[in-house]
Parts: sequence; structure tokens; C-alpha cells
Amino acid sequence: MSTHNAPEIPRTAREVRLTEQLEGELTLDHFGIVQTPVPQPNVGEVLVRTDYLSLAAAYTDLMRPDCQLPVPPFLAGERLGGGAVGTVVRSASDKLAVGDLVHSMSGWSEYSAGPAEAYAKLPAGIFPSPAYFLSQGPTAYYGMADIARAGEGDVVFVSGAAGGVGSLAGQIARCRGAARVIGSTGSKEKIDYLVDELGYDAAFDYHDGPVVERLRELAPNGINVFFDNVGGEQFEAAVQTAAPHARFALCGALAGQIGGGRAAHPRLDLMRAITRHLEIRPFACYHTPEQVSAWYEHFAQWHGEGRLVFPHTTLEGGLARAPEGMLGLLNGRYRGNVAVRITSG
Amino acid sequence: MSTHNAPEIPRTAREVRLTEQLEGELTLDHFGIVQTPVPQPNVGEVLVRTDYLSLAAAYTDLMRPDCQLPVPPFLAGERLGGGAVGTVVRSASDKLAVGDLVHSMSGWSEYSAGPAEAYAKLPAGIFPSPAYFLSQGPTAYYGMADIARAGEGDVVFVSGAAGGVGSLAGQIARCRGAARVIGSTGSKEKIDYLVDELGYDAAFDYHDGPVVERLRELAPNGINVFFDNVGGEQFEAAVQTAAPHARFALCGALAGQIGGGRAAHPRLDLMRAITRHLEIRPFACYHTPEQVSAWYEHFAQWHGEGRLVFPHTTLEGGLARAPEGMLGLLNGRYRGNVAVRITSG
Repeated sequence: MSTHNAPEIPRTAREVRLTEQLEGELTLDHFGIVQTPVPQPNVGEVLVRTDYLSLAAAYTDLMRPDCQLPVPPFLAGERLGGGAVGTVVRSASDKLAVGDLVHSMSGWSEYSAGPAEAYAKLPAGIFPSPAYFLSQGPTAYYGMADIARAGEGDVVFVSGAAGGVGSLAGQIARCRGAARVIGSTGSKEKIDYLVDELGYDAAFDYHDGPVVERLRELAPNGINVFFDNVGGEQFEAAVQTAAPHARFALCGALAGQIGGGRAAHPRLDLMRAITRHLEIRPFACYHTPEQVSAWYEHFAQWHGEGRLVFPHTTLEGGLARAPEGMLGLLNGRYRGNVAVRITSG
Repeated sequence: MSTHNAPEIPRTAREVRLTEQLEGELTLDHFGIVQTPVPQPNVGEVLVRTDYLSLAAAYTDLMRPDCQLPVPPFLAGERLGGGAVGTVVRSASDKLAVGDLVHSMSGWSEYSAGPAEAYAKLPAGIFPSPAYFLSQGPTAYYGMADIARAGEGDVVFVSGAAGGVGSLAGQIARCRGAARVIGSTGSKEKIDYLVDELGYDAAFDYHDGPVVERLRELAPNGINVFFDNVGGEQFEAAVQTAAPHARFALCGALAGQIGGGRAAHPRLDLMRAITRHLEIRPFACYHTPEQVSAWYEHFAQWHGEGRLVFPHTTLEGGLARAPEGMLGLLNGRYRGNVAVRITSG
């Protein structure tokens, strides 16, 4: 147990609570900031100061009353959950010491306390910022490597390619030897970003006419791998342009999360899917510790070799910035993974 | 080379040709019977008398001008193709002898000739009738064993369960240890057939209200395996009632072959598929020799042990019966695999 060098700890701190379950569109009214006492760690527990908080589109699903995800939903009146990186500031456990950098699902608060087992100790110094440990890389890596098995010679299409998952998924495909990586996104600026900075071979704006026509131009021999973050028209177009035995990793349905209807329930052309022998594998982004480790091992290597960048946005301004950040993320305002910096230190 | 014991061979024989590519609904006008010379086998070839001809719903896809199947389509003015079992009546090859029972894709004709390599010699005596070698078992077995991997404890749903593929698929699941096998079909008579004769635990008529309600009643804990021959509403209902990590083997889209529209392009509920981590694998029924062998090995064993019956209909009356047989098959008139007996001997 270690209590030395403890920084100054306030008596109260802020957390953000969900005011009511999400029925329609997310607004700032769904978030309420409250001041709460900073807890003392009991035996076996630690007190952690949150340094960075991650934001993700999937959080909106967890806010809905009919949430189907196999994890605890976000309930009205309670603190919002989600991934966070922080620093141990008090320890009543011999497993973690003051100063340790840790990852947890402690959620939207400036401080959290709990059993040391709920906090995973992170290695220091392998990345430029602790925010790298809030990447959506485990999802991108599991989907591209284990589900879609992208590899040598594959023509890969990533929808929502500039998002938190997509911006890593395309790079992972490239690092695994894909012949050609194509991305869809929502603006000319993001197209340039995908091609110039993330190494995509081609990218297009899904607003620019039928997606199926863009794909036929950019992948005249068909796509072998589809990593879908969007659903809707992009899914339907991928089925129409799939090469035989193409593998689809369906990770998200952003179009449905925003638009509902057809976007969330695209049509599946059965005869084409059958004759092309497609492999369609939707998967949820909940990962085993082994899957998370597999990502960070490759992430550290590829990042160290300069073969992969970590596209991310860090929002400054502390916890109060988080609600606005969620709305911005849903509206496609940011590039890559989005985190809120909670501490200014 | 053997020419002894050759039975009397006519100079001309009948074949059935496709009169025009199929655009709308299949009618008797799409078939034309013509008399053609019986060929002489050249060196390395055999002449085979067709004994049984198989009929399958997939043939209609091969008749369409926009056929997407990765095999030669059926062309207007040419003999219809498809699987057949016959007897070698003349041989100019040392690979096959007169009297050998053979399987080939020689199609709708009373006689055919070709290289010995195009005819697979069949073992005599392991089944009650040569028509057993026209089973759609390779498709059912590959789909259930390799694609859906049905096994111990699984709750299995087979759509189109009384058809050529479905009637075997359910039994294969049972032989592989499934806990519960549920089938959908189109009449009360077929429900009784599935339960009383094929050992289904439960069956329902898809005309009797929403399929999703029937499935919720019959599989309250969800289905683990879905073997789809139909598409449309049955596919959508299976997604709604799938247990986590359910495996879908999509084999056919009979609803679409008949009805088109929504039937052929059902909606995929992406969020449900993602949160349930479904594995959706459409596959086409073209098999490697290894896949065919795997089926016949299990078929002979399970049939010999009395654990599996071969549901089939043999239409008598020779080649002229085949066109009408195709229409009857598409209208659900028969049970199990359908073959036309060409020879009366």
C-alpha cells in the first residue's frame, strides 16, 4: 500500500449523469453535471483521477430503453459509463501504486474509486499520450483480423472510414498486406485526410451519388473485404459489388443510429449473397482481454515502425466538454477516436 | 473396353430443350421435347442410358438471362442440364464398363454420350434405389455440418423443411446431436409428415400468422442454427429470434424465386445482428468431390442405422413427365427430393 506523493485531492468533484433514457435524438438536455463527494478507497480499492475519457457512437445505444447490447445500459439518473484512462492517486491495494496509469470503464467523472481489479495497469512511455489507450483499435483489429481476415491481395472497403473505428480499420488492412483500401466518408476534407494522411488508396463522399456506382469505379473487380460502420445504402452497395467469397465484418450501423428505417434495416439481396458465397459477420465491440492485448501488441509495433498513425481528437476543457463532444461525434465533426481531456496537468 | 451384353439401343431418343430464357413465371411452354440421334461414343467415351433425372428449384435460376450462378446457365434452344443417374450401355473407355451405374450432369435426355471422366461410377447395392444418388444431400450436409456447424444441444430452425434440401437438413442436424429441430412448411399434411416421419420436434405452416410469433412459441430461448431455403419473412423472423452467436446457413431463396421483391431482398436488422453477433453465411450448392463424398459416407451410415430416411418422390412416366414435374416442385406439390424415372426397367 502506498499513499506517499499523493497529489492534492479535492473533497468533491464532478460527474455527468444521464437525465432521461434516450428516445429520439440526443440533445444537451440528456446530460446533467452534478458535484459529488470524492470517495475514500476501502481495503483493496484505489482512488483514480480521470485523465482522459473516451466518447463513442455506441454510447447512444446504451442510453436507449430498449438497448439490446449484452452489457449494462446507461440508466437515467446514473453516471454515464465508458472507457477512461486515469492516474492512481490513493491506493489501499498492493496491486496498484499511486502514480500508476490505469484503464477502466469508470465513466464520466473526475474521480472514481473501486477494487484494484477493475483498473488495468498500463505501460508508460510506449505512446505519445495516454489517450492512445482509449483507441477503438481492439474493435478495428478484431473485426479486420479475426472476423474479416483481411490479408495479402485483398481489396478492402471501409465505410465510415474517418471515424474512430474506421480510421484504424483501413490502416490495419494495409499493414496486413491488403492490395487496395477504399474508404467512404462524408466530406471532401475527410477524403483528403484519408488519402493523404491515412494511406487509403481511394476514398469517396457517400453524398456524391449512388454508393454502388462509386464502388464499381473504384473496385472494378469487386471487393473482397467489407468493414461496415454505417449500414444502409453502403451495406447494400457492398453486397452488389462483392467478389466471390467476400468477407463482411459488420461493426456498426451509424446510418441507423442517426436515421433509423432503411438505414438500420438494409435489404439483403439473397440470390447475390448466395451465388457469391458471402460471409456476413456482424459483431459487437466487446472484447476479451486477449483481443485487447492482440491489438496493443500490433499497435505498438506498427506505430513504432511508422506504418500506422493514431487518428484522434482530444477535446480540451474538462468534463463539461463531454456532452457537446458526443453531439459533435454523432454529427461527424471529428476525425478518428475522440477523447475528452479531464485534467489539464 | 467392353461392348458385350449391350442392351438394345434405339437410333433416336428424346431430349427436352429450353424454348426461351425464363423472364417471368415458368410454364410448360418453356419446354420443348425433340427427337435426336443417339450418338456413338468416340474413343475414351461412353454412351449412357438415363435412368433417373433430378429436378431442383435452382434450375429456374439457370434458365434466367441474368443468371448469376457460377456455372453454365441453361440456354434457349439447348438441352436442359442437371443431375442424372444412368447405366453405361456402350463403352469405348477402359475406365467404365457396360452395366456400370454412373452419375453425371448430362441433363434432360434419354441417352447421353461423353468422356468417361464426366461420369462418376456409383457403388451398387448400398441404397434401395439409384435415385438415392440424386439426393440434395451434399447441399444439406455441407450447409448443416460445415457452414452452420449444428451440433450437440443446438436449437435448429429449417425453413422449407419438407423440400429436397430441407427434409435432409433437419435430419442431419438431429443425427449430429441437435437438441431441438423446428421446421416450417406450407400445409398441415406436411407438418404431420415432418413430425411423424422425419423426426422434427415441431413444425408450423408459414401461412398461419407471423413467422416470428411461431418461432417465439416454439423456441422460447431462441434459435442457435438457421438453415434457410426460403428467405423473405422467414429470414427476418430468424434474425429476430436468434440466440447470441447463432449461425445462419442461407441455402436458397425460394420465396424470392417465386415471389420476388421483399422475399428475395429481406431486411437485415443490423443492430440486432450486431448485438447478437450472428454469423450469416449464404452459400451456393456447388460442391467439391470431397463434400459429395462426405455426404454419401454419412448418408450410407445413418440410413443403414435407421437414423435417417431419404424423403423423395419419383415421378413415373418417362422424360415427358419432367416439365410438369418442375412446375409441381415449384408449387410445393412433392415431398423431399424429386426425380423423374426415365426408364421403366
